[in-house]
Parts: sequence; structure tokens; C-alpha cells
Amino acid sequence: MMHNNLIVIDGLQYSNWDRTIFEQLKQGGVTMVHVTIVYHEQIRETLLRISEWNRHFEMNSDLIMPVKCADDIRLAKSLSKVGIMFGAQNCSSIEDDIGMVSVMRELNMMIMQLTYNNQSLLATGCYESVDSGVTRFGHQVIAEMNRVGMAIDMSHSAERSTLEAIEISQRPIVISHANPISFYDAKRNKSDTVLKALGQSGGLLGFSLYPFHLKNGPDCTLTDFCKMVADTADLMGIDHIGIGTDLCQNQPVSILEWMRNGRWSKEMDYGEGSKSNADWPRPLSWFKDSRDFPNITQGLLAHGFNEQDIGKVMGQNWLTFLDEALLPQGV
Amino acid sequence: MMHNNLIVIDGLQYSNWDRTIFEQLKQGGVTMVHVTIVYHEQIRETLLRISEWNRHFEMNSDLIMPVKCADDIRLAKSLSKVGIMFGAQNCSSIEDDIGMVSVMRELNMMIMQLTYNNQSLLATGCYESVDSGVTRFGHQVIAEMNRVGMAIDMSHSAERSTLEAIEISQRPIVISHANPISFYDAKRNKSDTVLKALGQSGGLLGFSLYPFHLKNGPDCTLTDFCKMVADTADLMGIDHIGIGTDLCQNQPVSILEWMRNGRWSKEMDYGEGSKSNADWPRPLSWFKDSRDFPNITQGLLAHGFNEQDIGKVMGQNWLTFLDEALLPQGV
Repeated sequence: MMHNNLIVIDGLQYSNWDRTIFEQLKQGGVTMVHVTIVYHEQIRETLLRISEWNRHFEMNSDLIMPVKCADDIRLAKSLSKVGIMFGAQNCSSIEDDIGMVSVMRELNMMIMQLTYNNQSLLATGCYESVDSGVTRFGHQVIAEMNRVGMAIDMSHSAERSTLEAIEISQRPIVISHANPISFYDAKRNKSDTVLKALGQSGGLLGFSLYPFHLKNGPDCTLTDFCKMVADTADLMGIDHIGIGTDLCQNQPVSILEWMRNGRWSKEMDYGEGSKSNADWPRPLSWFKDSRDFPNITQGLLAHGFNEQDIGKVMGQNWLTFLDEALLPQGV
Repeated sequence: MMHNNLIVIDGLQYSNWDRTIFEQLKQGGVTMVHVTIVYHEQIRETLLRISEWNRHFEMNSDLIMPVKCADDIRLAKSLSKVGIMFGAQNCSSIEDDIGMVSVMRELNMMIMQLTYNNQSLLATGCYESVDSGVTRFGHQVIAEMNRVGMAIDMSHSAERSTLEAIEISQRPIVISHANPISFYDAKRNKSDTVLKALGQSGGLLGFSLYPFHLKNGPDCTLTDFCKMVADTADLMGIDHIGIGTDLCQNQPVSILEWMRNGRWSKEMDYGEGSKSNADWPRPLSWFKDSRDFPNITQGLLAHGFNEQDIGKVMGQNWLTFLDEALLPQGV
């Protein structure tokens, strides 16, 4: 089986982007990567991040291209380029304004989380002690995201909010980067209840390779990872799973602190880490960067997945999901 | 009894300010008025509102003066001027930034609501279906408001959030403009549970004269209003009640729509009104504008309150509350 024949989609990365990383994506056979362009950035700051990406596109047009619709992923494959799909890990980039959903979509923001760990104006994050579900503004934003074709991502949201988003949304939603709690009990991982509801509604889970989300952390084996994939396929169905590595390459600790603390805290919040373990986790031996994607394909093959199912997990399911999720309504 | 000898404090107004209204405040014997300068305005927009007030102060320095500490209320009384105390009815003016609490306090924002009807980043508003209480960011903001001496106002907050704010805050908090549900069952009015906890913690309730908060609406009588004051004094103690008229003079319907909808809704939200009753309510016959404050003093006297207690309700309790609430910690 040739890894490089596959459509390979990484459902989330947040790296300190440069040409070397773009080359690694290409070497790893990645067709498209969902890149986080913002966490807590508000409107003006989001435009700055987009302008930085425009510069990346200008300087690296031989390697990468922007994804402005799902078919651009197929185009990237045919051109042997890496498609770049913009996403937001918090809803700060729409601030308090329902009108900013369509504005951000016009700027190719294709996917947005309703929360990032904390309570947002839309829903509750997975670090809050009480989860009140989707708010009044949240109901409106979900309807508007459905209308313009922006995918709803609940990776960092709390359980009730996630179940309500699945229910309220007229379209399937995604959890782009997380793992089952049954595999490893982390705050960011998801219960079987959520995963079943996600699968039954036509949604998608992207498996995370971030060590904080894995059994045995940085020492998690490829075999254990592939067994988790198989178990989750049994739970959700083989059509509802994919990859979302959460790879954060070459980022300084200051970026980890920004992700965890934004501007909301006077005390240091260590997120999934702790005071004595405040830094980025040590990477997996079998997935250090995007050049290691073929290892996952090989691992799934060794586990006994057939070629069609491997194709689905490595990217086809993401593509099918995005074909529907990114299409504006009434178009 | 001479109304004009009293310290008279109005715990909330939001009018379309001009010299005529400032003159009416003086004619009504008002010593200090808490003016809402922002609802959903963010940082940049809040600075615009402050600059507009700076112009008012410049043009009307014979009539009004800014309140930069509680003693400025006594100074206003001695100078026969009307003190103007800035406040925010939503927390949008600090956006997502804990550092903006002290910045806004330096700009004389003396009081801030943690929510306005909807879920905020800090707590839950009274129009949400589920109330999850004070958020992680909310805990930090309450501590910072305590530190810099900015009063916490829960007038538009939901019950659990209000009880938690009373508990979490190291200082007494205020409900600047609302009435007891036992008097009139409106979404914005408060339960006996909340009012008792507020009184026991040293907090203050400002009675609203906004018809949507009153029994029989615009036809509520002065006698009924004064009976409510007496009943609430029995519940909370005479030291924990004051006035917060919620007077909104000369404002167009567009402002009512801004208060109710901000930027979050594509559909019209009618707040305390309805589609068939979308406009400002008709005013009370005995309280049309600030010139009618002596009517309240007279009504309380007619109801049987003694002069000392009338002085407390009309302003002294607010002054005592602000003496503590506005003092920065460690100063």
C-alpha cells in the first residue's frame, strides 16, 4: 500500500510555520492540514494572523495553497501541494458580533471551536466546574455557522455543551483533536456518550497525537494508538474517525502560556500540565513531525485494517465531512 | 423635612444626556447619579463614551462633576453640583483581559455588572435558561475588582451567579436597579433568597422605577412603591436599601434595541417587552424625570418612615456602601 497515493488530512496543527515545516508536510504525504490561526485573538488580531498567512502563501506557492472550499483539497492533491485550511480554537475572532461569522468565513475561516477550555459567550469549556450548555448567543452562532458553511468544532468543550451542539446544529459537527476517555482519562478526552452521539449524527472525531491525550503520554506505542483507533471504529463506525494530530512544532513555551492563559488570568494556569511539568510534552518516538505520517498508515495496516478503511481514517472521512460542512446553505 | 438637605443618590440612570437633564437632576436635589456609560461597548468604544463625558464635564462644569472617590459625593453636595459616577452594565469594556479592570478603574469606572441578561465571560445573565454561576475568569475578575475598588453589580444576573458573587467577593456587592419578585414577578427582579443573602453580606439593593419592574407597570402607585420599600426593609434591614431609578430619558428606540440585542442577535429580542410592546414603557405619573425625586421623599414620609430612615433610603446607604466599595485594597 502506497501512503503517498492516499488523501491524507491532518485535522489540526498549530506550529511555528516556516518553509521547513511546509516541506515536512509534503514529505509526509499530507494533502491538507487544518491550521489553527487563532486562539484568543480578537478581530483585529485575527486579521494580522491572516495577513501573515497571506505572506506564507506568497513566499511558498510552490508548496502550499489556501483551502477555500472542499474541492481545493482535491486540487491540492492533483497539484502535489499541501492545502492549508484556516481554523479558530476559540470564538474570540467573532467577538460579540453575529455578523462576524460570515465575515470570517469570507476570509476562509472554515472551522471554529465554540469554546477553548473556559466559558465563552457561546458555550462552556471543559475546564469549567459547571457546564450550562449552549447560550442564547451560541444558538444564533450555530445557525449562522450552518448557514455560511463553517464547521463547528467542540474539541475543547464540556460534555453538555457538546451534546447540545450536536443536537442544535443542522449539520454534523466535528471534534477535530481528542481521544476517547476509555483510552486515556484526560479532561480534554471524550466520553463514549459524546462519541456515540457524534458518530450517530454523522460527525467526525480526529485522533490526537498530543502526548497529554495519550495513554502513557510520550511513551504511548503505535500499537496502542492503533488499537484505540480500532476500538473507536467499533464504537462510532469506521466512517466517523480521522486524524487530528495537534502537532505544535517549534513553538516556544510563551505560546503554550498564551494558549492556556490568554489574557484572563493573573495566576499561571498550567492547563494539561502542572507547575512541575509546565513545558511542552516530549514527542512520540513514532510521530515527531509530519514526515512520520506514513508510520500511522503502516501501524494501521499492521493492526489489520484493510486498505479502504485506512484510506478513510487517513483522510477520506475528513474530506467527506468537509464536502458537506463547508458548503454554504442555499447555494 | 427638607428634601434638599438630604444626600440623594440615584443608583442608575441611562439618559440621552444634555444640559437640560443635568439641570433637572439639580432641581430634583440629586447629589450623585450613577450613569451607565456602556452596555456592550468594548474597550475602544468605551474610551469614546468616556471622551463624550469629558466633553460634558467641560461644557457643564457649573452643574456636574466627575466622581473619582466616595468623598467626591460629599464634595458635590457641598458645591451644590451633581456628582457623576461612571458604571458599566455589561463586562464588554474589559473584553477578555484581566488587566483592563485596573485600567478602567483608573478611568473612573466605579461599578460594573458581571452580566447583562446573557451569558458573559464572567457569569450567567437572567435571560439564559441555565445558570452555571461564576466562571474561572469571573473568579479572577471579582478578586481584581475587590482589589482596585470597583463595585460588583448583579442587577441583570441570574440567581446562582448572584449568590456565588456575594459569596466569592471579599466586599459587599450591589444590585443597583431591581425590585423584589415578591412585589412583582419579572425576570429582572430578585428572589427573597438573593435579597436576604445580599443584606446579610452588607450589600445594597437599589429600587427600580422602570415600569417593567413594577406591579401594574406604569400605573404603579407611589403608595404601592413605598409599601414595597417598607416590606424590603423588613426583609433586608433598613441599612441595605436605596434607589436606582433606571431612568432612561429622551432615548430613541434604537438605544433600547442596542441594550436588548447588542450585536449578538440576527432576530429582534424584545427583552422585557414584546413584539406588540416593543417601545419604551410609559413613565410613572409621580416619577417622570429627576425633578420628581422629592415625591419619593414625600411618599416615604407619608408611609410612616422616620427622617433618619428616609435619609438612608434616599442616599445615605449608597454613600456608606460606596465608602467601602470604592476604596482600593491596601491603600
